[in-house]
Amino acid sequence: MKDDARACPGLDPGTAALAAARRLLGGVRAAFDAGTLALGRQCLSNGRLDGRKLDQQQVASFELAWAGADLLASETALAAVADDAPAIEGALALLFAADAVASVLDKLETVYLEAGLDLAALRQLRAGTDWDLLRAAGSGARALEAAGRAVAASDGELGPVALDEQHALAQDAFRRFAADVVAPQAEAIHRHDRTVPESLLQPLREMGVFGLAIPERFGGSSPNDREDTLLMVVVTEALSEGSLAAAGSLITRPEILSRALMAGGTEAQKASWLPRLAAGDPLCAIAITEPDYGSDVAGLALRGTKVEGGWRLTGAKTWCTFAGKAGVLMVVTRTHPDRSLGHKGLSLLLVEKPSFDTHEFSVEQEGGGRLTGRAIPTIGYRGMHSFDLSFEDFFVPDANVVGGEAGLGQGFYLTMAGMVGGRMQTAARACGVMRAALRAAIRYGHDRKVFGSPLVDFPLTQAKLARMGARLAACRRLAYRVAGLIDAGQGRMEASLVKLLACRSAEMVTREALQLHGGMGYAEETPVSRYFVDARVLSIFEGAEETLALKVVARGLMERALGLAGAGA
Amino acid sequence: MKDDARACPGLDPGTAALAAARRLLGGVRAAFDAGTLALGRQCLSNGRLDGRKLDQQQVASFELAWAGADLLASETALAAVADDAPAIEGALALLFAADAVASVLDKLETVYLEAGLDLAALRQLRAGTDWDLLRAAGSGARALEAAGRAVAASDGELGPVALDEQHALAQDAFRRFAADVVAPQAEAIHRHDRTVPESLLQPLREMGVFGLAIPERFGGSSPNDREDTLLMVVVTEALSEGSLAAAGSLITRPEILSRALMAGGTEAQKASWLPRLAAGDPLCAIAITEPDYGSDVAGLALRGTKVEGGWRLTGAKTWCTFAGKAGVLMVVTRTHPDRSLGHKGLSLLLVEKPSFDTHEFSVEQEGGGRLTGRAIPTIGYRGMHSFDLSFEDFFVPDANVVGGEAGLGQGFYLTMAGMVGGRMQTAARACGVMRAALRAAIRYGHDRKVFGSPLVDFPLTQAKLARMGARLAACRRLAYRVAGLIDAGQGRMEASLVKLLACRSAEMVTREALQLHGGMGYAEETPVSRYFVDARVLSIFEGAEETLALKVVARGLMERALGLAGAGA
Repeated sequence: MKDDARACPGLDPGTAALAAARRLLGGVRAAFDAGTLALGRQCLSNGRLDGRKLDQQQVASFELAWAGADLLASETALAAVADDAPAIEGALALLFAADAVASVLDKLETVYLEAGLDLAALRQLRAGTDWDLLRAAGSGARALEAAGRAVAASDGELGPVALDEQHALAQDAFRRFAADVVAPQAEAIHRHDRTVPESLLQPLREMGVFGLAIPERFGGSSPNDREDTLLMVVVTEALSEGSLAAAGSLITRPEILSRALMAGGTEAQKASWLPRLAAGDPLCAIAITEPDYGSDVAGLALRGTKVEGGWRLTGAKTWCTFAGKAGVLMVVTRTHPDRSLGHKGLSLLLVEKPSFDTHEFSVEQEGGGRLTGRAIPTIGYRGMHSFDLSFEDFFVPDANVVGGEAGLGQGFYLTMAGMVGGRMQTAARACGVMRAALRAAIRYGHDRKVFGSPLVDFPLTQAKLARMGARLAACRRLAYRVAGLIDAGQGRMEASLVKLLACRSAEMVTREALQLHGGMGYAEETPVSRYFVDARVLSIFEGAEETLALKVVARGLMERALGLAGAGA
Repeated sequence: MKDDARACPGLDPGTAALAAARRLLGGVRAAFDAGTLALGRQCLSNGRLDGRKLDQQQVASFELAWAGADLLASETALAAVADDAPAIEGALALLFAADAVASVLDKLETVYLEAGLDLAALRQLRAGTDWDLLRAAGSGARALEAAGRAVAASDGELGPVALDEQHALAQDAFRRFAADVVAPQAEAIHRHDRTVPESLLQPLREMGVFGLAIPERFGGSSPNDREDTLLMVVVTEALSEGSLAAAGSLITRPEILSRALMAGGTEAQKASWLPRLAAGDPLCAIAITEPDYGSDVAGLALRGTKVEGGWRLTGAKTWCTFAGKAGVLMVVTRTHPDRSLGHKGLSLLLVEKPSFDTHEFSVEQEGGGRLTGRAIPTIGYRGMHSFDLSFEDFFVPDANVVGGEAGLGQGFYLTMAGMVGGRMQTAARACGVMRAALRAAIRYGHDRKVFGSPLVDFPLTQAKLARMGARLAACRRLAYRVAGLIDAGQGRMEASLVKLLACRSAEMVTREALQLHGGMGYAEETPVSRYFVDARVLSIFEGAEETLALKVVARGLMERALGLAGAGA
């Protein structure tokens, strides 16, 4: 520990508490692994996880997924606290771990009850001196106050991650752009429900944000030989601090489409589309969800019918974000009439259309094809607008089937190519919104006087700031760690896990930041009110939290514990 | 237990589990009382609670207040489960108690650490067989699923409370009005930020809602010889189910003003104002909060200067809800120039003005007085609008000083006369919003199919519905119980306690209801999105949650434990 503890009296987590926390987490991890294995065994049929049995264990699986997220974040936070780390980082890691251990042990009780394990193993973890030490040093009142004072003095720069020069430069440039250009326009875009203006889009094109996931040889800024998820996370987090809706979410869609093209496009399609997507001209949108099918991709019904020279599309999509402004839509289309094929009957079609700034649009083709769109009014996440789309005999040429003839039936797999990136970006978006909310709360806490003293001088404010800071720090560290795993070809399950945790954490942090503002927090003129309504979308899109927790995280954890194929997916 | 358990397989909490829960809660109550007493002793100076020491213990005090709320709600829920109660009520009481006990024991750890008590007493409560029984029967996966199926079949009629014929008739009438008249207009009022229209106000006048807290002899509907808080709760809850902003909050302001007049008005003022307030003509608003002073009433600065025949008001108020539409404002005014008098220098002045439907207004007096108002745009709770007010030399005649000469300096005490009612109404408002959200979630869960089955058929949905239902039932039962206490002259502290719990619970329930709707929940066209943003105001107004928890609930609990004067206040 560095001796900045002197600057903040009481802020010295101490090596004894850190050692106790690490020992305790070791015990909790062992208990978690035992629970995962036992629950996994409950869900086996003939040596494989059985869908019906997994469904029967949804309640315990949901708890398992959240416990896994809290636990991994705690381990990551504590592992990041080196001997020379500032005292505040140790204090926040201990605080997060103390809250997480209590939560994990509660959730594991449900898992153990379902898996028929003895709860005594869990109780023992709470009974030892390691828990006493962690409880007092991590989340005791004095520890919270000291950590809160340090957070108040930090202006929100918490959970620092080591970045190489290129990434540090990008962070710096995009944070500056977010503060100087995005933030001043964010309130008007939100309150008047405007479309993201060219005054934001044009400089972002010039900064190359739309080509971050596209290799340099195709006009993007990603290395030719590997992915650079870390860069996506850095840029997304920085932009989201200015506005989730007007900037931080702009690069999710080009990433999904360009990864699909990289994974399955023909060489001609790559050469034609990728440089234009990298330049942000056209902008793009992704049409997957349908009114009757949310996360249930296998049931999608929008139908493509083969005709001379191409396909005619008929059906509806919904929640297609940025569909108005976009010049091209990636449309997941059922190109095989046999619906029993499920996701194997899906293909990706590129629908070209004019760009609209309006909330409604209609495109008529010669020959009778038609596409109409209507922006769905939402409580937040305004600016890009999410559209209901209706296709009526809309013609798409054969050249716009991703992968051509060979791409037919590949739609599901090609979509999946961008999903991990989408989830990582969403975790980064959540971190950016959290950081904005925490910084707003800190500023307000210094400015606002109650009962004669600044708000930050009250122990309860300090405790709240400490918990908000601990959550932001833990989520950031985990997001950056998982980004590194993904660039090393691992961490697919962890991408969903950190998406879960960061999005729910953003709800909590924005809720508390709003609360600290009192009535002003509820006013639309105060940015924190926007952070709060924006944050609420995070647990819904890019994989609803229930679907990710059950179908990806819990399932992935059990597969790993059981040593089954698919582990690590 | 009635045998409706047969209708919902697995739904049988059983007498053994109920007995175990009651025993366990007895132990938790003893541990809570010991913690309260010990923490109170830490805050004593010369036999009285010391403000500075209380401030030093804010963190532990905050946890104490929430633990007290969870515990009292659990006890109340379990006490209400009679032998002939439907099985679902027992199941929900057990579920709430299981979650609450885990939470209370966590919070008490902070209290015990600060008070220097041995944590072993808390750990023991978790180690016994009573906890095992409650954990499995209350919040085990199978119990959650069974309770959730029953909630899904209930359409939200949970936590029933025994009402006499008069109150049952009122509930029925106002529920019908909320469903038939309020709910169909609520979306437009919210989305277009309209002022509550006469099409709602006029029938409500005719139903007598503005005179609910006014005795019959003054034209109201309250008995002449006692208060009828229960009726306020019944009506407020019913109207809030239709809309928090357009109906459920209309009677808070007349209650506060009419209680102030009853407590301190002259006979002439009572005779003149009360019948008109009861008739809702004029409507009224309450101006307390100032831009620099939220919950800190002693610091209020709006100044009244004595002039010939009256007072001239200069200064600002903020968050004055309904100030535009109101024809009279109750303005807390500093009428004594010595600011060191604190709240003893405050008086209540009645400011008469024209009624406006606009978001801005300006009133000019002959002689130069001026009052301007501007509605503060907010993320929810629209319809009544909360105003910034600016008074410049605004003249108010002597006759409009509540209590006349004798009322000078009484403003704080007279305001307090309506505060308990305001908090009870707010708890009821929260219950109404929760009920609306839960019913919406249930309906959507039946209608929406995912992966081929209705959403309500999935165990995770059932678990969520069960927890939402348990919270609604526990809050309702507690609110109605406290209303009864208040009508018996007790329960002032408990009014703040149930306000805390119900408001935070409304945030949780609306969050989950929105989440169950997926993307549709985030759309402004779906009522649940309005319930979510509306619910967010509840923990801020009528006493911010931090202020109530620390200054009323924790303090009141400690005073009681220490046997100090003020106990029960």
